[in-house]
Amino acid sequence: MNSKIATMEPSVFAISITPFDAAGRLDEPALRAHLERLAVAGVGVYLGGGGSGEGFTLDGAEARRVLEVGVDQIGGRVPVRAMGTEPRTARQMVDHLAMAADVGVDAAQVYSLDPGHGHRPTPAEVERYLREVLAATELPCIVSSHQSVGYRVPPALLATLADEHPHLVGVNCSHGEVGALVAICEAVAGRLEIHVGGPAQALTALALGAQGYLSSEANLAPRLCASVIDGYVAGDLARTFSSFGEVVRLSGLLYGHGGIRATKAVLSHLGLPGGVVRPPQLGVDDEVVRAVVEHLVAAGIPALEGWSLAV
Amino acid sequence: MNSKIATMEPSVFAISITPFDAAGRLDEPALRAHLERLAVAGVGVYLGGGGSGEGFTLDGAEARRVLEVGVDQIGGRVPVRAMGTEPRTARQMVDHLAMAADVGVDAAQVYSLDPGHGHRPTPAEVERYLREVLAATELPCIVSSHQSVGYRVPPALLATLADEHPHLVGVNCSHGEVGALVAICEAVAGRLEIHVGGPAQALTALALGAQGYLSSEANLAPRLCASVIDGYVAGDLARTFSSFGEVVRLSGLLYGHGGIRATKAVLSHLGLPGGVVRPPQLGVDDEVVRAVVEHLVAAGIPALEGWSLAV
Amino acid sequence: MNSKIATMEPSVFAISITPFDAAGRLDEPALRAHLERLAVAGVGVYLGGGGSGEGFTLDGAEARRVLEVGVDQIGGRVPVRAMGTEPRTARQMVDHLAMAADVGVDAAQVYSLDPGHGHRPTPAEVERYLREVLAATELPCIVSSHQSVGYRVPPALLATLADEHPHLVGVNCSHGEVGALVAICEAVAGRLEIHVGGPAQALTALALGAQGYLSSEANLAPRLCASVIDGYVAGDLARTFSSFGEVVRLSGLLYGHGGIRATKAVLSHLGLPGGVVRPPQLGVDDEVVRAVVEHLVAAGIPALEGWSLAV
Amino acid sequence: MNSKIATMEPSVFAISITPFDAAGRLDEPALRAHLERLAVAGVGVYLGGGGSGEGFTLDGAEARRVLEVGVDQIGGRVPVRAMGTEPRTARQMVDHLAMAADVGVDAAQVYSLDPGHGHRPTPAEVERYLREVLAATELPCIVSSHQSVGYRVPPALLATLADEHPHLVGVNCSHGEVGALVAICEAVAGRLEIHVGGPAQALTALALGAQGYLSSEANLAPRLCASVIDGYVAGDLARTFSSFGEVVRLSGLLYGHGGIRATKAVLSHLGLPGGVVRPPQLGVDDEVVRAVVEHLVAAGIPALEGWSLAV
Repeated sequence: MNSKIATMEPSVFAISITPFDAAGRLDEPALRAHLERLAVAGVGVYLGGGGSGEGFTLDGAEARRVLEVGVDQIGGRVPVRAMGTEPRTARQMVDHLAMAADVGVDAAQVYSLDPGHGHRPTPAEVERYLREVLAATELPCIVSSHQSVGYRVPPALLATLADEHPHLVGVNCSHGEVGALVAICEAVAGRLEIHVGGPAQALTALALGAQGYLSSEANLAPRLCASVIDGYVAGDLARTFSSFGEVVRLSGLLYGHGGIRATKAVLSHLGLPGGVVRPPQLGVDDEVVRAVVEHLVAAGIPALEGWSLAV
Repeated sequence: MNSKIATMEPSVFAISITPFDAAGRLDEPALRAHLERLAVAGVGVYLGGGGSGEGFTLDGAEARRVLEVGVDQIGGRVPVRAMGTEPRTARQMVDHLAMAADVGVDAAQVYSLDPGHGHRPTPAEVERYLREVLAATELPCIVSSHQSVGYRVPPALLATLADEHPHLVGVNCSHGEVGALVAICEAVAGRLEIHVGGPAQALTALALGAQGYLSSEANLAPRLCASVIDGYVAGDLARTFSSFGEVVRLSGLLYGHGGIRATKAVLSHLGLPGGVVRPPQLGVDDEVVRAVVEHLVAAGIPALEGWSLAV
Repeated sequence: MNSKIATMEPSVFAISITPFDAAGRLDEPALRAHLERLAVAGVGVYLGGGGSGEGFTLDGAEARRVLEVGVDQIGGRVPVRAMGTEPRTARQMVDHLAMAADVGVDAAQVYSLDPGHGHRPTPAEVERYLREVLAATELPCIVSSHQSVGYRVPPALLATLADEHPHLVGVNCSHGEVGALVAICEAVAGRLEIHVGGPAQALTALALGAQGYLSSEANLAPRLCASVIDGYVAGDLARTFSSFGEVVRLSGLLYGHGGIRATKAVLSHLGLPGGVVRPPQLGVDDEVVRAVVEHLVAAGIPALEGWSLAV
Repeated sequence: MNSKIATMEPSVFAISITPFDAAGRLDEPALRAHLERLAVAGVGVYLGGGGSGEGFTLDGAEARRVLEVGVDQIGGRVPVRAMGTEPRTARQMVDHLAMAADVGVDAAQVYSLDPGHGHRPTPAEVERYLREVLAATELPCIVSSHQSVGYRVPPALLATLADEHPHLVGVNCSHGEVGALVAICEAVAGRLEIHVGGPAQALTALALGAQGYLSSEANLAPRLCASVIDGYVAGDLARTFSSFGEVVRLSGLLYGHGGIRATKAVLSHLGLPGGVVRPPQLGVDDEVVRAVVEHLVAAGIPALEGWSLAV
């Protein structure tokens, strides 16, 4: 996997968690150990994201430190990218990219503008935002079109921006409706790297000419998540489908039990680096941990992931 | 493909259109010719459905005749099933099943209760409905859980009913949210045949232990739709993914241009049996036909389907 | 209240329930007694509707008989209108209107086309449907724009149809989003009678130049529902608002407990005509009845409605 | 109108715009002149909000300065409150309230927690957030339950918090579904001041025992917005309804044309203080301004508002 820039090779990226210690401080040793697990499994990493990365709870120094640790620990081995959080203004995203470039990540995601308060920007405002952001950096950028902001980035705009900005290298597409993915693939597949957010559409994406998927599940089971892509590259249909089915089941299980609240608790229970969530999120009950671990064991994931555990 | 009952073999079913002639009458010769195309391609058939089959425009005699033609023309070669329309009461579904059994189809879909007027039945009402319907027939039944009625059939109820009714042989799951499919597969995969409605989740379904998908696209390109399943069964990853990608693109194209309004117009343009839509649906413009045909040609579908056309 | 045609006077209509006896048969004496309560309270009546009227459970003879009983019992005293159910085709609505005209109701609602299976008609199909229906009858018609079908009847189309068809006399608007009501009022207020479906927007509707509201709550508390309008006509702000507040609270209470399942059970508990629901709906628990009755007593509704009850 | 604390008297609050000059700087003279218009009309003011106040574009010094100008210009004459923006963490809201208290506003809104990225907090997290925030300030607080964050603050929790925190004085309820308002009124009406966000439910709210509404329209037509409340207090039904109808129409017109993008442009066109929007928002075309002004003139608003204009 090329560690520096986007490629057209199939791939999976972990949307990395950010480990905190019991006092709520950024836990650098745990972060390093966690990233090491991901790198060994061969998955790329997005750091400091607003969802799985708890990016909205990080102050400026912490957000930078997370990237620094990532570059230092696994840079050059797998792609290390900044994810960041949905910005309210172009200025916020420009500042974030400047910081990320200064730290030396391989690339950074450019979130869609989220004007807040349930508002949606007009198409002209979406375009202005993206143009302002892309003009302000030379860092390789991946534009996100994410349903959480309530609108889609127009595929035709992505094609135009790709023509004009060589450092626009990819798109992350996170929309439940598959039509959004089809439209983006028809507009820029083969020119921009495309990943879908979450595993649900991973096979669909590959079939449409996209490169793969972003996964929070990879924080728990990185080898399993990589196996979907490895199987696909090897032309091994059975492996691709069986791995993918298990990722989807695991995804449903985790999201049904609190998302990374559960992921972190399970990692800790297994003796793996993960830490605790920060407020406003609260931890999960032991029952949740037991239910997830039971599923993992039944699915044979400890062996696949190489956990030497007495769970 | 076993023509009589549900199996655990991967499969695709066409949700067949119902050809009408220019005067709006059921066009039996066209229906026979259309079904012949589907059978030759090896896809099973659901007849008289409320969406692609324009089932809501059929009177009682027509609804029966469509099934009779299906059984007569392709019975014993591929599965021939009744789809029907969403019922307002159990009585409506019971009457439909009695008619379908009398005609001699292989199996029939049992739609979810649709009380109308935007109402949703309570869980107790859903259960009573399904119990009443299943108790009234011995025909092999496939229960539908479809988002158009605004609720899901509880997976645990499906498991219970499967225990109690040997003639409950399958589930058709049509929900945009993949979690609904995961839950149904966890509840009854391996015991009931499971298909997803529409191609979007077809690969996901196969990966989760379901048998395949239902497809309106198969009315236009049955060999393409079958190729997804044939590739999967053969372990041919490249064929599976390339066929599937094209089905998804074709699906987006057709639904973006009026669904079966476009499908029928394109079939007619190609000299294939299809007929016209009945009111309340109206036909599409020539531009739509041109756009779809252009896409088909660019995607190499005429050759795949064996159309000897000068399009 | 003019009993024959639409007027621009403020008004409320009950969406009448249809009483059934314990054996599930249409209970004509109970229907007559129920309608008498409504007429005495001075509210107009819509009969046989698909929601509160359980219209989807009525066969053809029953649907006609409900209208006949209405005309016979309260015709000439308050407006008696046919509501009916959402049709799948124009033909169904045309047949319904012919029957209603033959019975001699004052007017009939024309539901929006509901093509079923989650489908939406195109704007051209909506227009064709309404034109076909209006051309086929001379009965005064009220067109419904109802969110349950997933689209709005274009206000400009309503204005055009009002120009062309003198027997188009009103609009029933049932959309949660107030913008739909504003647009309809701007298009046809003062020319067509406008009512909102349900009480939530009743005051808003009056303020925008509409005539009032349709109410399922009037089946239980017709005088309370009429009091909103009477207070408004009298310029009595305090009465208008206090009555309206209570109607809204009652509405929330009933819909939160099963809608007419609860309404019918409470009426029976109070010794008033109401009967039981038909399958697919099932009755409610005694606890629900107790909770509703407790609320009614606390709100002083028995005295207002003139119930001589030992509840 | 009591300028210091919440009361149970009916009232309307303007969600004030924040004027910027052509260079995008906070325009203090325009803000003062704008607030003066509002105070003269007798409407209370919320400052720095994330929607109409463009609060997400303000840096810390600006957010403070807006409040200082408000207190200095109109403090003691009408209520002056801090609105602020949806916070990602309790810490952000606590810091905001400390600043607002230091400036000396009469009260401050406490927004619902918005964890970002489409996530929703669990009920336990909502409770923890509100407890942490309320424990950290002595400033009178109004808790917001707003649909933009994707969940409701549980009414029972509001009642409990009201028991425990005397400085919790109100609730702002902004949910399209009227059931949310009914539930809040049943839980705390008469104990906490309740306003609905936007005019659509203003009369409904008054009827349910709430105090009134928050209005962005008041930036343009404050006397009109106040007239709804003044009419209501005076028992003048005709005035209440006619004023309200016009506010609702104006609201639809403004939101259909870009919200405060249009409001600011129209104010400038009329020679009134308003300024321009900041990025990411862009201004509107002259046609929009013309359409809105035409409507205002036709509705007689210039005379009502006392504009001496040659529009």
